[in-house]
Amino acid sequence: VPRLLLQPGSHFPPDPPLDTHKYRQGSLLLVAGSAAYAGAAVLAGLGARSSGAGMVTMVVPTGLKPLIHTVLPEVLVHAWEGIPTLPPGKSPAKGFQALAVGPGLGETRLPVLEVLLRDWTGIPWVMDADGLNVLAELGVEHLRGRGIRAILTPHLGEFRRLFPRIPLSDRIEAAQQAASQSGAVVVFKGSRTVIAAPSGQCWVNPASTPALARGGSGDVLTGLIGGLLARWGGTGSPIDESILLRCACAGVWWHAQTALQLAKERGLTGVDPARLAEHLPQALRTLRQEQVIRY
Amino acid sequence: VPRLLLQPGSHFPPDPPLDTHKYRQGSLLLVAGSAAYAGAAVLAGLGARSSGAGMVTMVVPTGLKPLIHTVLPEVLVHAWEGIPTLPPGKSPAKGFQALAVGPGLGETRLPVLEVLLRDWTGIPWVMDADGLNVLAELGVEHLRGRGIRAILTPHLGEFRRLFPRIPLSDRIEAAQQAASQSGAVVVFKGSRTVIAAPSGQCWVNPASTPALARGGSGDVLTGLIGGLLARWGGTGSPIDESILLRCACAGVWWHAQTALQLAKERGLTGVDPARLAEHLPQALRTLRQEQVIRY
Amino acid sequence: VPRLLLQPGSHFPPDPPLDTHKYRQGSLLLVAGSAAYAGAAVLAGLGARSSGAGMVTMVVPTGLKPLIHTVLPEVLVHAWEGIPTLPPGKSPAKGFQALAVGPGLGETRLPVLEVLLRDWTGIPWVMDADGLNVLAELGVEHLRGRGIRAILTPHLGEFRRLFPRIPLSDRIEAAQQAASQSGAVVVFKGSRTVIAAPSGQCWVNPASTPALARGGSGDVLTGLIGGLLARWGGTGSPIDESILLRCACAGVWWHAQTALQLAKERGLTGVDPARLAEHLPQALRTLRQEQVIRY
Amino acid sequence: VPRLLLQPGSHFPPDPPLDTHKYRQGSLLLVAGSAAYAGAAVLAGLGARSSGAGMVTMVVPTGLKPLIHTVLPEVLVHAWEGIPTLPPGKSPAKGFQALAVGPGLGETRLPVLEVLLRDWTGIPWVMDADGLNVLAELGVEHLRGRGIRAILTPHLGEFRRLFPRIPLSDRIEAAQQAASQSGAVVVFKGSRTVIAAPSGQCWVNPASTPALARGGSGDVLTGLIGGLLARWGGTGSPIDESILLRCACAGVWWHAQTALQLAKERGLTGVDPARLAEHLPQALRTLRQEQVIRY
Repeated sequence: VPRLLLQPGSHFPPDPPLDTHKYRQGSLLLVAGSAAYAGAAVLAGLGARSSGAGMVTMVVPTGLKPLIHTVLPEVLVHAWEGIPTLPPGKSPAKGFQALAVGPGLGETRLPVLEVLLRDWTGIPWVMDADGLNVLAELGVEHLRGRGIRAILTPHLGEFRRLFPRIPLSDRIEAAQQAASQSGAVVVFKGSRTVIAAPSGQCWVNPASTPALARGGSGDVLTGLIGGLLARWGGTGSPIDESILLRCACAGVWWHAQTALQLAKERGLTGVDPARLAEHLPQALRTLRQEQVIRY
Repeated sequence: VPRLLLQPGSHFPPDPPLDTHKYRQGSLLLVAGSAAYAGAAVLAGLGARSSGAGMVTMVVPTGLKPLIHTVLPEVLVHAWEGIPTLPPGKSPAKGFQALAVGPGLGETRLPVLEVLLRDWTGIPWVMDADGLNVLAELGVEHLRGRGIRAILTPHLGEFRRLFPRIPLSDRIEAAQQAASQSGAVVVFKGSRTVIAAPSGQCWVNPASTPALARGGSGDVLTGLIGGLLARWGGTGSPIDESILLRCACAGVWWHAQTALQLAKERGLTGVDPARLAEHLPQALRTLRQEQVIRY
Repeated sequence: VPRLLLQPGSHFPPDPPLDTHKYRQGSLLLVAGSAAYAGAAVLAGLGARSSGAGMVTMVVPTGLKPLIHTVLPEVLVHAWEGIPTLPPGKSPAKGFQALAVGPGLGETRLPVLEVLLRDWTGIPWVMDADGLNVLAELGVEHLRGRGIRAILTPHLGEFRRLFPRIPLSDRIEAAQQAASQSGAVVVFKGSRTVIAAPSGQCWVNPASTPALARGGSGDVLTGLIGGLLARWGGTGSPIDESILLRCACAGVWWHAQTALQLAKERGLTGVDPARLAEHLPQALRTLRQEQVIRY
Repeated sequence: VPRLLLQPGSHFPPDPPLDTHKYRQGSLLLVAGSAAYAGAAVLAGLGARSSGAGMVTMVVPTGLKPLIHTVLPEVLVHAWEGIPTLPPGKSPAKGFQALAVGPGLGETRLPVLEVLLRDWTGIPWVMDADGLNVLAELGVEHLRGRGIRAILTPHLGEFRRLFPRIPLSDRIEAAQQAASQSGAVVVFKGSRTVIAAPSGQCWVNPASTPALARGGSGDVLTGLIGGLLARWGGTGSPIDESILLRCACAGVWWHAQTALQLAKERGLTGVDPARLAEHLPQALRTLRQEQVIRY
């Protein structure tokens, strides 16, 4: 089993060319939130904002629109009823480059996922939380059956529901089996998050902090990875397994490094998810500068 | 009468292990707010956020949900109707580790308390404000009768209503009598807050500031102590009188030290309760660092 | 005509004693805002927050409650219908120590003022904006007729409506005549704000900045002066002309000095009223520190 | 073809005199937003705030009022129904000095523009986004037909719709032809934004950053240019082509320089439009200080 430490530099989308414009910086569709779990949509949106994607469009229940407009004024917001439809299998020309789905979907998760599985198979997905729970109900084989390129980001409980037959004695082997079984890149979250691809490649996040062990941290990660996927898509590169893997690795590493930096500044109890999301850009700037200084 | 100064180091929950996850960092149920006193719920929630608890769930009137989602997106929010029920006496496996109740309940305080007193006796409580006022109406003996482990945080007016026969000539003796009579840890708030346990142990907060003498400061403290209780619960330790006392001491000391630090930075008039709550983590980091440097 | 420069040190309420509590730090009733001018209520509330008053209660139209709770969670909010009534002439025991009225009242200004003029004459007032406009309609002599101790804070247009017969060739003399005629302390706002009392005392604010020449700056000042009045009331001092004058002077000076400091930090275009209000405490801390260093 | 680099110092409105007041600092009417695109109105409002205009009034659909009051309490807000009418051709005495229209108008753009084109021709306009789209439908010649002095700020897609016959091989020549054809100052947005006037004058923004390549950046620019127009109007200068050109140049340069500075501080992904808008004043202060130091 190959076990690699992360070398983050090469995992990020290339810096944008000087003459880029917003439609080339990646357009993300983020489907999240419900009346019961509205905050999860906000946190995923904040994560997407900090990814640097050119455009973020959120699909939420109608009642959540004022909330999103207040916290995320640059986000375009559609109501559930307004999920744009795409002919299955077609590439979304001038449309979205990635889909993030799951945080806080609550009771509406099943009808939402059915629409997405039918019409939105042409762009790469990142799935989390209630998205994973409904996938566990439908059967994880649906992804491969529809030809969806996906990143799944389960924590322990979600992993058990998605992959009930995979033994958990070794988390790295478990993630690799899950990737192989689902055909998706699997981000098995924990204190040492494992990222595994169907081809067998596997990475472990080298450093993290207990400050991330609180509700909402994962929602930020979903939005962040979604935004990175969209940015890669915006470059025109075909989004194959290698790019999915880079997005997953870059997102997990960036998220954890930001939490480490914020915990150092504000203490272990000061890393609430909204603040974590807002600190992502600045942390990356510091991390890159430090790399420049060192090498 | 034993009178001790606070030694805060040993009163905080132990630092989380590296492999912790959100369900082990403490799950708090916070019942607060009403149409008339919505802000109190926000402030208690901000205090709970800064405690570092892994999960915070708030129960508020339906109309307050957008407000909570806007300010506290990581918080799960249920409507009054949705107070989860627990079989009385059972330990809340995989559920909540602590209950904080009281800030801003207003006119709905009686029916809410009746549900909690019936079904939520298995986990430790912190009670404040309207929670204390309804307890005064029902009779403080209800707590002991139900076997509830509780921290009560009255200011002078609430103390008088709760314990009308206890003389107030000596605040320390008054707090000790109140603890003895109620079977609860009593935090008698004032410029020199007294913390007394039924066993006779008693502490005085050594330093504070008039900057805390404004509406809302107490709501922040309630959420903070609640979060500390949940964190202790998350470690698996049984929550006995000793732990209740530590949470009350740690909360009172942290709250006052933060106000002192913030008043130094922003002046006496700059310590509004929301800012106080947001400054808690950073203040603790500084306080701990200073201890490390000194000793 | 006596013309004095401001000596701000002696105009502020005395620093609170160490054993103060929120009910002794001043309780302000702020009546402001309407559906059309909701933001004015927010800005006045932010000014009141920064005054350091122990309790701020706002009376607004029902529809504005969520807005106030979001921005000012420590504020108690009542709907128009809920203006507490006081027997005329009685001192408000355990109640409010000051009333601020006017910003953004809009079309409801007349009925609101009628209630206040009938029932709220026992505590000192600060009036601004639409409060002044309706007073101009009713006749400024109403204040003296009701025995109300008041501070009026007109800008040029409002001054003209309130005192149509007073010539404006000399702003200082105009303010003095207005104070004499109305029996109120008059704050005649402008680039060199004049503060005049009925007894003939008169002050000129020594320094200000064009950064204050924008909508909303005045709303902040109203809340700030109201909070200072409440703080003086909380000390138990009788609120006579001398105290009204000190509150007006302290408020005008603090407001302008904060704008000067903020303009230096953020530039002339960066002094929006909400930021101005939030910077008040920190500016005062700096100003006092500088005084300590200098003398 | 004259091609000049920007010399920003002389393009800004003169610093306000010490005895200015809010009605002389410029009053802007900003018409933006719709149920579907509410955030665009917020961002344009934040841009207008940072311009330093004395008064900003926004016209939005009724449902957006709470959102605007929460984020921009100093702004006066009217509902669509409440667009103030002016006799065509009259100068707006004591009224507004400029109109900004377009961001996020959505489906209501046509009826809104019809009212504005009928009654609001007396003050200068800046048009963007959906304002430009409806102008493309109506025909760009409407502006000249009505005698409206205007700044148009199209990006590539909007430019194509507005000027379908102008070839795009040379962006500078294209902008100049567009200005000549429309009689308006044209801001052709891109990585090297071109500003062209009908008289043939033409400017290129010398430096920018890919951090601006995200949804919402343009809305901020619209509000900013609108505020600068209003400030020039407040000085009493007649708003001729020369002033339109200065406002467009100053706005584009200030916006880009702020993004450059913010990207340096917070990294390329940290320049979300709301933060960009809030950083405008501070960036200008720094830029001016640096000029003072250098020369």
